[in-house]
Amino acid sequence: MSPGTGRFVGDDLASLPTPAGHRLLVGTDPVLDGVHLDVAEAGFAAAGRKAMNRNLSDVAAMGARPVAATLSIVAPLGLTSADARQIVEAAEAAGAVFDCPIVGGDYSAWRDKHGKLAVSVAIIAAADIVVPRVGAQAGDGLFVSGPLGGIIHGRHLTFTPRVALGQRLAGRARVMMDLSDGLGRDLPRLLDGLGAELSLVPVHADARGSVERAIYDGEDYELLVAAEPDIAADFPELIRIGTVTDASGIVLHTDGHRHRITPGGWDHGLRD
Amino acid sequence: MSPGTGRFVGDDLASLPTPAGHRLLVGTDPVLDGVHLDVAEAGFAAAGRKAMNRNLSDVAAMGARPVAATLSIVAPLGLTSADARQIVEAAEAAGAVFDCPIVGGDYSAWRDKHGKLAVSVAIIAAADIVVPRVGAQAGDGLFVSGPLGGIIHGRHLTFTPRVALGQRLAGRARVMMDLSDGLGRDLPRLLDGLGAELSLVPVHADARGSVERAIYDGEDYELLVAAEPDIAADFPELIRIGTVTDASGIVLHTDGHRHRITPGGWDHGLRD
Repeated sequence: MSPGTGRFVGDDLASLPTPAGHRLLVGTDPVLDGVHLDVAEAGFAAAGRKAMNRNLSDVAAMGARPVAATLSIVAPLGLTSADARQIVEAAEAAGAVFDCPIVGGDYSAWRDKHGKLAVSVAIIAAADIVVPRVGAQAGDGLFVSGPLGGIIHGRHLTFTPRVALGQRLAGRARVMMDLSDGLGRDLPRLLDGLGAELSLVPVHADARGSVERAIYDGEDYELLVAAEPDIAADFPELIRIGTVTDASGIVLHTDGHRHRITPGGWDHGLRD
Repeated sequence: MSPGTGRFVGDDLASLPTPAGHRLLVGTDPVLDGVHLDVAEAGFAAAGRKAMNRNLSDVAAMGARPVAATLSIVAPLGLTSADARQIVEAAEAAGAVFDCPIVGGDYSAWRDKHGKLAVSVAIIAAADIVVPRVGAQAGDGLFVSGPLGGIIHGRHLTFTPRVALGQRLAGRARVMMDLSDGLGRDLPRLLDGLGAELSLVPVHADARGSVERAIYDGEDYELLVAAEPDIAADFPELIRIGTVTDASGIVLHTDGHRHRITPGGWDHGLRD
């Protein structure tokens, strides 16, 4: 690949065999310097890795199998071939973990000195059973795939998307999503008008014991699942956090207090 | 869609039936404000339309059938919902011409005032026969799908990609590409080491009679085809420009002069 404007590959589009699976899934998620990471601090490889892993996490959230990806680099002035290679190789390495090759891409560059790096992966996946995001039922158990919060201390650049777990959950999870905006904002989306009683929010060590951070920091890239409660036996990696209810609102019972969780924040809590 | 960071659709990835066709094609091409168009002058709709049409032109170049697209908007500060809607609706309208719906997307925004609009379409296509870019043979006729040059006068924002023609050429064209960097730079790529004798370069009215502009302006989004010469009878919309040769180099015979065309420019010409 050369700096300047050009393509990675000879043909305009990458060609691959039509993947097996009843549904084809496609999506795209960009990673922007100054928004999703600070490239000066984190480096070019981190941008490539994060761009791929965010998209793989989307695939995980639907219980699908990644097939292939394209990579588009929009470069700041002065990006060198070596810089670009770091981005591509890191994205390739992250994809290779889940047999998701980069099959094509595009390179273009801003023309003014203020233009910042944007790395955009578009991903193709296939699935026999697609796990939807909405459709939870009262009585479903609520689960997450790991402890939450404190992402800013580096985990947002190094996480491993839950692709393998997501695929195993296809057909078992009723609804599923990956936590990108934090449990406090994503759980209401999953519930889609239903409520929840939570008994536990697992707090990552990086969140330094703050339940509030675990709920609102975001970018966890853990799976949030609603399913028949008895799936717990088959998925020891899932942490049960509560139960879907017919009531509206999300209530967390913790430390003898009852907190109401909303997308905008949580109240300080009434004694239970 | 709301300004701020969010998705167009409920699920992380769009889900579509696995398209019919032996090969699945995927690619992505961004349109950048200040590089591919001037948004302040051309407007938001032009950015959406061009982003879709560039990708559809890539599909045309491989003789494939567009299936679906995703749209990613990276917004400058202050982009309004109405602005974004213009981009999306124009891209949708351009896709609809060739039954290519936008099935998903993503919206994110720069955080500093210098960040410019980037619109990135990723496209999915299907084909039973994929027309490659390289593999021309000496003796093949060379054709283009329309007159060239003078794009800057507006055609780069309004062109219709040659999707229908491209599909009809699948199985008939030996090799094909869409002209994005100009005949002078793209023809050597198509020839891949072979040469060509050209007898004609069709000059668009916008190029004001300049053959040099027709060869080097770029962004024509016309198809460049090498095929058995007799396909001309079945494709009246193709303009024969010359013949592939075993010799190296591209020579244009025009106005009684012989010009050698290279990616870097052309010589002034020797009398034929």
